[in-house]
Amino acid sequence: MQRRQFLAVTASAPLAAAPAPPNVVLIYCDDLGYGDLGCYGSAIPTPNLDRLAAEGVRFTHFYSANPVCSPSRAALLTGRYPTRVGVSRVFFPADKVGLARDEQTLADLLKARGYATMCVGKWHLGHLPEYLPTSRGFDEYFGIPYSNDMNPRLMLKGTEAVEQQAVLETITPRYTEQAVGFIERNKAKPFFLYMPHTYPHIPLAASERFRGKSKQGLYGDVLQELDWSVGEVLAALKKNGLDKNTLVMFSSDNGPWFQGSPGKLRGRKGQTYEGGVRVPFLARWPGKIPAGRVLDAIGSTMDLLPTIAGLSGAKLPAKPLDGVDIWPLLSGQKKDHTREALLYFDNWDLQCARLGPWKLHVGRYNSFIYGPAPSTGRVNLRLRPPELYHLVTDPDESFDVAAKFPDIVRDLESRIAKALPGFPAEVQKAWRDTDGRDTAPSEPGRLPRIKG
Amino acid sequence: MQRRQFLAVTASAPLAAAPAPPNVVLIYCDDLGYGDLGCYGSAIPTPNLDRLAAEGVRFTHFYSANPVCSPSRAALLTGRYPTRVGVSRVFFPADKVGLARDEQTLADLLKARGYATMCVGKWHLGHLPEYLPTSRGFDEYFGIPYSNDMNPRLMLKGTEAVEQQAVLETITPRYTEQAVGFIERNKAKPFFLYMPHTYPHIPLAASERFRGKSKQGLYGDVLQELDWSVGEVLAALKKNGLDKNTLVMFSSDNGPWFQGSPGKLRGRKGQTYEGGVRVPFLARWPGKIPAGRVLDAIGSTMDLLPTIAGLSGAKLPAKPLDGVDIWPLLSGQKKDHTREALLYFDNWDLQCARLGPWKLHVGRYNSFIYGPAPSTGRVNLRLRPPELYHLVTDPDESFDVAAKFPDIVRDLESRIAKALPGFPAEVQKAWRDTDGRDTAPSEPGRLPRIKG
Repeated sequence: MQRRQFLAVTASAPLAAAPAPPNVVLIYCDDLGYGDLGCYGSAIPTPNLDRLAAEGVRFTHFYSANPVCSPSRAALLTGRYPTRVGVSRVFFPADKVGLARDEQTLADLLKARGYATMCVGKWHLGHLPEYLPTSRGFDEYFGIPYSNDMNPRLMLKGTEAVEQQAVLETITPRYTEQAVGFIERNKAKPFFLYMPHTYPHIPLAASERFRGKSKQGLYGDVLQELDWSVGEVLAALKKNGLDKNTLVMFSSDNGPWFQGSPGKLRGRKGQTYEGGVRVPFLARWPGKIPAGRVLDAIGSTMDLLPTIAGLSGAKLPAKPLDGVDIWPLLSGQKKDHTREALLYFDNWDLQCARLGPWKLHVGRYNSFIYGPAPSTGRVNLRLRPPELYHLVTDPDESFDVAAKFPDIVRDLESRIAKALPGFPAEVQKAWRDTDGRDTAPSEPGRLPRIKG
Repeated sequence: MQRRQFLAVTASAPLAAAPAPPNVVLIYCDDLGYGDLGCYGSAIPTPNLDRLAAEGVRFTHFYSANPVCSPSRAALLTGRYPTRVGVSRVFFPADKVGLARDEQTLADLLKARGYATMCVGKWHLGHLPEYLPTSRGFDEYFGIPYSNDMNPRLMLKGTEAVEQQAVLETITPRYTEQAVGFIERNKAKPFFLYMPHTYPHIPLAASERFRGKSKQGLYGDVLQELDWSVGEVLAALKKNGLDKNTLVMFSSDNGPWFQGSPGKLRGRKGQTYEGGVRVPFLARWPGKIPAGRVLDAIGSTMDLLPTIAGLSGAKLPAKPLDGVDIWPLLSGQKKDHTREALLYFDNWDLQCARLGPWKLHVGRYNSFIYGPAPSTGRVNLRLRPPELYHLVTDPDESFDVAAKFPDIVRDLESRIAKALPGFPAEVQKAWRDTDGRDTAPSEPGRLPRIKG
């Protein structure tokens, strides 16, 4: 894998004739579904995000590496599968773990390249000082270090608590103010603004200006405030003459939870059906990324690190990456690319692999639930993997065709075995080491990792 | 409720000027999703069912009374909520319970009216002799008395086992042969053929003629064989000159399970989101039901008993019905109707109520699952009811607008209280009586029931 990545990066145009290192603004929502933006078919008006799409490129097959918060973020910031970097599950306030200390983040790379770096928002990769953004490549941090449904809802500035219980209604405006302030302060040098919003993760709240204003209830209000925030960031870039030197990207960590829409996709947050992991992705860089393109190439949040590293001239980590440089797609040189099978994890369990139009499900549970209520006493049922779906002719994963295409199944299984040597034995061992419980282990460094 | 039902039935046209009692063929699939027929947007070709739709009426807002097998069937055959008739949950081979003996089925009513009656297929309302079809108004029975994933997979003729483990591949052809034979034998008198198919419930199987033939894998093969079966039944009616005196209806017991499509609806089998309970409904009666109509009026499988009773002149049960006579809709006299809030149950729990475009969720769990795998140790999360959805502007239940429309919420809550006096206290008491476990109780007659 290392060699493939190396070749991919050295072979692509940007390193040979890279533009001046651009500013990078990466806006990342929490639990925002594939179908939640106007430009993805939502009834919620999102004019600023729609403009971002119209002025840049929009992906229709873009994936988060995991259907829940912490692992998604670990993959986004390292370009590696979450199971490689010690973040297999969601972190809680009682945890003492975080993204493995020997992993480099995108912020580490860009800071080494001379960028000013700030994280504004929900971190969720460890909240002890050594795991917080300011220890992971960010000069500055402002935000809640985990989810807004966790207690206490600490608001941090750097590593210091500025509020024990952040007022829900104030979160998006305050994040926006911090983001705009960072842009203003750093307009003279390259900067990296990572803005992982707290919303639309529950509990939902919107400021008075937006509360009750949408036709889609509080979820719609929250989405409209997020869209407003994107508009404020774009306005700050424009006001400071930074439009043409700034790459702005937008995505989400996983599918929608209680509210929000996965569009026509099957499943929601926590599931490795498409609705749990396929997310919106928009990228705009006027003059560099052609406007108005819609791509159905397969992309991953793990691709952003190698892509941004390529554009900025930052040195890649020594460890193998699972993402690939997608600048040829963003820049309009290519409409599609060939890439190795993309893997979907759910905690320690490898669940799926996607290659071209095909998606193989190999997990035994795959987050399918027969019925949950303790009052009914129902139990989860085991699936009988593998299942194979053709996502072009069967976008909502309704028809398993594994028996019809045994060669495709075998090909994908062998690709999995190559990507994860020892799978499943090694992963299962790691899983046994941790008792497989969501609450264990909490000692630093004890989270198991797959090799590489 | 009794009075309302009484008024609805006496006020409708059919009783006053009823046509000659029609033959009734009711085909009922198992776990077939809202989006699984060609005429509902599926990629699976279902030409015979599409023809049924084209020659009759197709409903787009038609509901099963429950998202799982046994309660759905109890409601279909009694016109009453499953919680009223002692069938709150799925029955298993170890159970000694069944549809409460003091309830009358549609077959009881039609048999009393002189109909020949037969059930061909999956019964699932009790498999001890006193609960089997031949004790519940059917002259004849052929089929498996519960689901095909239960053991032993007994095939019965009447009350006698003709096969200890029915061969999966033979089930649909044998059901079809039995159904055609019943039509042939009874063409001279009015008959009621109730044909609850075993498929597409898992484990899936198709006969050699269909296996591997569809583009949608085994699920598609199974659907195409079911469609073929419908074609055979229609051909038998035509061949025997019965077309113009036969009302043919088609529906499903709940949404799709592992395979199959709920269309664009949220949720699947076991859930009271629309995908778990909204089902296809087709009705054809040449010369009586105008061809080619598509209705978005709210219908329920519980409506079939009063509708068919009205058409056949059968005497209604003395107990209050929850379904209403929808002949004015089927016959083209009306495009829509007003009806009391339709309730959705999940086991003993009242989960939702629908009135016009509004759907109120009142359940605390509502079959939402965060994640199921024992390896992740995740827990189910409680919802914070009520949630309110507008199913016309928000068909996939993405945006809770309860806070925006408190009057609608209050109105629906008061309708629930009126429909279920004592709710939720009485229901909760009943639930405690049974320990709330899926396996208890199994003594005859001990299943609790709500009043009326």
